Amino acid sequence: MQSETKSNMMVPDDTPELRQLYADFEAEHLKPLWTQIDDLMPVVPNPKAVAHVWKWSRLYPLAKRSGDLVPVGRGGERRAIGLANPGLGGRAYISPTLWAAIQYLGPRETAPEHRHAQNAFRFVVEGEGVWTVVNGDPVRMSRGDFLLTPGWHFHGHHNDTDHPMAWIDGLDIPFSYQNDVGFFEFGSDRVTDYATPKFSRGERLWCHPGLRPLSGLAATVSSPIGAYRWEHTDRALTEQLLLEEEGQPATMGPGHAAVRYINPTTGGDVMPTIRAEFHRLREGAVTPGRREVGSSVFQVFDGRGSVVLNGKEHRLDKGDMFVVPSWVQWSLRAESQFDLFRFSDAPIMERLHFARTHVEERDR
Amino acid sequence: MQSETKSNMMVPDDTPELRQLYADFEAEHLKPLWTQIDDLMPVVPNPKAVAHVWKWSRLYPLAKRSGDLVPVGRGGERRAIGLANPGLGGRAYISPTLWAAIQYLGPRETAPEHRHAQNAFRFVVEGEGVWTVVNGDPVRMSRGDFLLTPGWHFHGHHNDTDHPMAWIDGLDIPFSYQNDVGFFEFGSDRVTDYATPKFSRGERLWCHPGLRPLSGLAATVSSPIGAYRWEHTDRALTEQLLLEEEGQPATMGPGHAAVRYINPTTGGDVMPTIRAEFHRLREGAVTPGRREVGSSVFQVFDGRGSVVLNGKEHRLDKGDMFVVPSWVQWSLRAESQFDLFRFSDAPIMERLHFARTHVEERDR
Amino acid sequence: MQSETKSNMMVPDDTPELRQLYADFEAEHLKPLWTQIDDLMPVVPNPKAVAHVWKWSRLYPLAKRSGDLVPVGRGGERRAIGLANPGLGGRAYISPTLWAAIQYLGPRETAPEHRHAQNAFRFVVEGEGVWTVVNGDPVRMSRGDFLLTPGWHFHGHHNDTDHPMAWIDGLDIPFSYQNDVGFFEFGSDRVTDYATPKFSRGERLWCHPGLRPLSGLAATVSSPIGAYRWEHTDRALTEQLLLEEEGQPATMGPGHAAVRYINPTTGGDVMPTIRAEFHRLREGAVTPGRREVGSSVFQVFDGRGSVVLNGKEHRLDKGDMFVVPSWVQWSLRAESQFDLFRFSDAPIMERLHFARTHVEERDR
Amino acid sequence: MQSETKSNMMVPDDTPELRQLYADFEAEHLKPLWTQIDDLMPVVPNPKAVAHVWKWSRLYPLAKRSGDLVPVGRGGERRAIGLANPGLGGRAYISPTLWAAIQYLGPRETAPEHRHAQNAFRFVVEGEGVWTVVNGDPVRMSRGDFLLTPGWHFHGHHNDTDHPMAWIDGLDIPFSYQNDVGFFEFGSDRVTDYATPKFSRGERLWCHPGLRPLSGLAATVSSPIGAYRWEHTDRALTEQLLLEEEGQPATMGPGHAAVRYINPTTGGDVMPTIRAEFHRLREGAVTPGRREVGSSVFQVFDGRGSVVLNGKEHRLDKGDMFVVPSWVQWSLRAESQFDLFRFSDAPIMERLHFARTHVEERDR
Repeated sequence: MQSETKSNMMVPDDTPELRQLYADFEAEHLKPLWTQIDDLMPVVPNPKAVAHVWKWSRLYPLAKRSGDLVPVGRGGERRAIGLANPGLGGRAYISPTLWAAIQYLGPRETAPEHRHAQNAFRFVVEGEGVWTVVNGDPVRMSRGDFLLTPGWHFHGHHNDTDHPMAWIDGLDIPFSYQNDVGFFEFGSDRVTDYATPKFSRGERLWCHPGLRPLSGLAATVSSPIGAYRWEHTDRALTEQLLLEEEGQPATMGPGHAAVRYINPTTGGDVMPTIRAEFHRLREGAVTPGRREVGSSVFQVFDGRGSVVLNGKEHRLDKGDMFVVPSWVQWSLRAESQFDLFRFSDAPIMERLHFARTHVEERDR
Repeated sequence: MQSETKSNMMVPDDTPELRQLYADFEAEHLKPLWTQIDDLMPVVPNPKAVAHVWKWSRLYPLAKRSGDLVPVGRGGERRAIGLANPGLGGRAYISPTLWAAIQYLGPRETAPEHRHAQNAFRFVVEGEGVWTVVNGDPVRMSRGDFLLTPGWHFHGHHNDTDHPMAWIDGLDIPFSYQNDVGFFEFGSDRVTDYATPKFSRGERLWCHPGLRPLSGLAATVSSPIGAYRWEHTDRALTEQLLLEEEGQPATMGPGHAAVRYINPTTGGDVMPTIRAEFHRLREGAVTPGRREVGSSVFQVFDGRGSVVLNGKEHRLDKGDMFVVPSWVQWSLRAESQFDLFRFSDAPIMERLHFARTHVEERDR
Repeated sequence: MQSETKSNMMVPDDTPELRQLYADFEAEHLKPLWTQIDDLMPVVPNPKAVAHVWKWSRLYPLAKRSGDLVPVGRGGERRAIGLANPGLGGRAYISPTLWAAIQYLGPRETAPEHRHAQNAFRFVVEGEGVWTVVNGDPVRMSRGDFLLTPGWHFHGHHNDTDHPMAWIDGLDIPFSYQNDVGFFEFGSDRVTDYATPKFSRGERLWCHPGLRPLSGLAATVSSPIGAYRWEHTDRALTEQLLLEEEGQPATMGPGHAAVRYINPTTGGDVMPTIRAEFHRLREGAVTPGRREVGSSVFQVFDGRGSVVLNGKEHRLDKGDMFVVPSWVQWSLRAESQFDLFRFSDAPIMERLHFARTHVEERDR
Repeated sequence: MQSETKSNMMVPDDTPELRQLYADFEAEHLKPLWTQIDDLMPVVPNPKAVAHVWKWSRLYPLAKRSGDLVPVGRGGERRAIGLANPGLGGRAYISPTLWAAIQYLGPRETAPEHRHAQNAFRFVVEGEGVWTVVNGDPVRMSRGDFLLTPGWHFHGHHNDTDHPMAWIDGLDIPFSYQNDVGFFEFGSDRVTDYATPKFSRGERLWCHPGLRPLSGLAATVSSPIGAYRWEHTDRALTEQLLLEEEGQPATMGPGHAAVRYINPTTGGDVMPTIRAEFHRLREGAVTPGRREVGSSVFQVFDGRGSVVLNGKEHRLDKGDMFVVPSWVQWSLRAESQFDLFRFSDAPIMERLHFARTHVEERDR
């Protein structure tokens, strides 16, 4: 394997003329490459973001306290608390591209409608009772569901019950902010439809396996499905493990079932910048060490286990979240059946042809 | 609307020299365009194939008699009886591109395995008890199911019961024959797996709405789903009509629900040459007259109604089949809830950019 | 290699009941598969079209005689004489998909404008002086040029000189006729622009290597280039052979340079149904035997050599044309530098996923 | 037009409990959205990068002084001086995604070979005498040429003359750095081929308009053309203006000719992250104010004129460079024929579906 640092053999002599040159560069808004290349162009990705775990047992109580102290409504827009990667300084960025937050909505509260260029989703690790209204379509949120709010879709949330609810949000806010692509528009201060149907209209049109409506034949940039229900995810994973037991190729690796959430109009990712997947390990399963260009976030949905990140093991319980920065090696270990939701910036890496993957060879 | 004939103003004088020229053409395997252009290059498509209806009440008894007289097995391969368009002379072509047949398998019979470049499907208007084994995966066949056998997949059928079963086959045999693209290979004289599972492995991996397995991420030429079950088709159509009642856009037109069967890896058609759809009309619904480049075949799955083909109405009962040649105007009328399966060569027309559609304007 | 016939082991007994069954099939417009499968579904493509060579020394004089006897103008539209494959009976089809013709335009004649869904091109083996006007853009025709008239583009031709000119036309008439996709519309009885510029507007906008105009950024179904000039084709082939001499990978095989004409908006074929290429062999070069699904037509542009078609050698001189039906093995042999234009239906085969190629292994 | 700030109506009371909550967030690496949303999710893009002009008359002398003081060679790798956007603080980023630099190579010097995941190009505003060797293929660099070094291609440069040469480099270093996608590998300390051919092998294979070699039929991620020559660019622009004079649609707007450099295997952009174009204005032409999501860099190649950036006019001379950050309005004004090279991150914006454009309506 190649060395991860570059020796710097080309060092100009430190003379008054050189110092003057560097000062003149500064005055003209110029910077030499030769003093920066080791940092700017590393041998392998050398992220400032660090691998880190957030415990649900700490996140949820803080969200609950926010519920008491911070109103939700127009202006702040959402009672969402972002996970801030310790390596990325002051911003609420879990990675250079991704935002992850816990959002909390008290009994009978409404988060007002707005839309933005940023792509967003929700994933529900526990609870129920909130409906998110996306372009006018009310979508029930329940444990295990994955819910979409693609860029420039109006959306608001309301809690139809007397108990609070919390969930996680994922967005491409850091990528959008860094690259100056964001637009934002206010919508209704209330949600436009307080109905509480069991299934959204998008699901009723689109969630029939292998079928699409003739009224919707164009490929769409993002998926038309508002909610991917736990019932389907669970069944898909269960079948993969059963097929594996029958000796059929079905899993990603021994004891490791996994599905990707897709846009049914293309078979591709649900949104242009965010990939979402669900992984299930059998008790005792261990995944090979894997490095990927781009960053991922996982949340434990159920079971017990651990993740090894660049050689360091972290124990994980239900609701815990962790980030895997670019090219950091990760491996999962399951102490029981172990269920994890994952999202990542892989569509960015693939569409721009920066994607690379390295999987550790295992001893046998 | 433009005239459908071209006047021929350019007529060379009929002289001995011209006759000699034409004779010399013949000897050199040449043909002048100017004597053929009206036929070869019509103003609008002028198919030799004609619109025609086959009654299930006639088809089924003939298939049953074949069951008594004709063995199934290696050589003839299948007890399939092709619908021969009256306009296409001696061949069993329902249209220039498509083959449609009724296939009949007696109690405990096996149709041996083979594979061919031609793309094939089955649709079951009634009955159950047969499994088709596609590349080793046993697929149950039941009323309302749509089943795939894409090009170059091995497949055989066996009847696991003591009663016969019949269904329809659709293939691109005429297209393949005309264009010399066919390859054929024998497989096992028996089917390779006599198991009778309720769901095929392909379904267990792929029939979860909005999800795909991480073990199968490449786009495939044809759908990996072996069976599209009636339960899903029926529910999708039901939801469209309910949504229409709620005032939501969901149907193709008033009272006209419709779904397309798709390849979940692309969102596109199930196979490169054949499109398949299912249409449901509310009682009393009438579809606007529609002309399309390319040919279609319909089978009535349930209900009563009629089709108007180039101005002539044909009454239709369960199991009846009809063909709509290129640019023939068709309109459906429902006397009860009216369910129809449809397949066509539309992927050929679209991929080669010959597709055109004309929909009749309605009075309001 | 697999056998090219299928034994037919399944023969029903010839009884009165069977005869009655077959008669009843006939009456209901039905045909059994089991009596036809060997023909309809061959082990490898078994084209009715045959390999055949047409000599330019015979074609040209017949075209010239037509020039004396047959007027050109509205009705017959074109003085074009189609090459009729001896295996395809009465139609002017050089293959099941392709039309090839010699077209002849006398001094000062005009072939009137029309348009049709069929895709067309011209290739000029000798002569000059005609302009083809495509959607209003006058395009000079000269030796070695390849000229496009994609589907539904208006086009007419006029001879600006006092000498006649002949060239070859290629179209997808047989495919269009067989599949009922043709539309046709008359345009101006004269051409709409009698200007005789050296370069068409399409060339002036599009024929700059690696560049496209910002006024034309959408991908188009067919190439926006009206004329592919001999000067460019010749230079590209010359460079490939020079690069090969320098030891660089550049040719299709030893001594075999080749280019494909492309649509610069996609990098793909010039039209949805027709591929066009130009091949140059060094003196002495021999290409390995090659079989392809789909049919091709070649015309010798320059030099001497031969083609071996399914084992039979045919000597070839300038202007000679030959057809290679589906899966017929072909190999070229060059006695001098040997230049050939080729067109085929390969885009159809590739877009519908029927393409296969087999290249003979050579002794070394 | 919508307001560019959002009022913040939702302000929690500043209580000891709230302060404790915020402190606890900090300890757990959390940040609330409600205090950051106005900055993170602006109404329209609000780039930190500013519009700025660098004068060639200042850049070139500084590059020359570097030539005297700073050796070129392994380690620093290149004598390149990056343009640092005044709004982006310490980094040599001309925009959040793009790097632009002036590179200077003295007489007989060699810049050693290396490769990196970052995509790179060169554009030559003046001079000649250097060859860049890309994956072993020596490519001449001359005034007006645009030269590619796509990601992971080895490349080095050498000056074959006794005079120095300078040019500009463009790369996606900021994007790659920010998103942790960079890989880097050293190659030969010298270039692998010191030949000085007039045309590279890539050009000899690929620079024939409308043609591609049969030895290279796969679509490639980046263009196989190493050099886009000034001769072709100039001719394409000249023809567009001539066509406009003839009343034909050919230009982007009145008096405004423009071409995009493309990958001939796809018709799309030359590399996955960088678009390159060349614009020519007639004397007196003015372009309408235009805003685009994403950032661009222009260099004046010839002529005199100015650019108006968010309402402020900047005079421009040959070699001057300026950056247009996201959503900044720009308009060009030509005092003479005015030629400008442009590159941008538009492929990123388009592939991720963040692209938007707004063009000012003009009075007539």
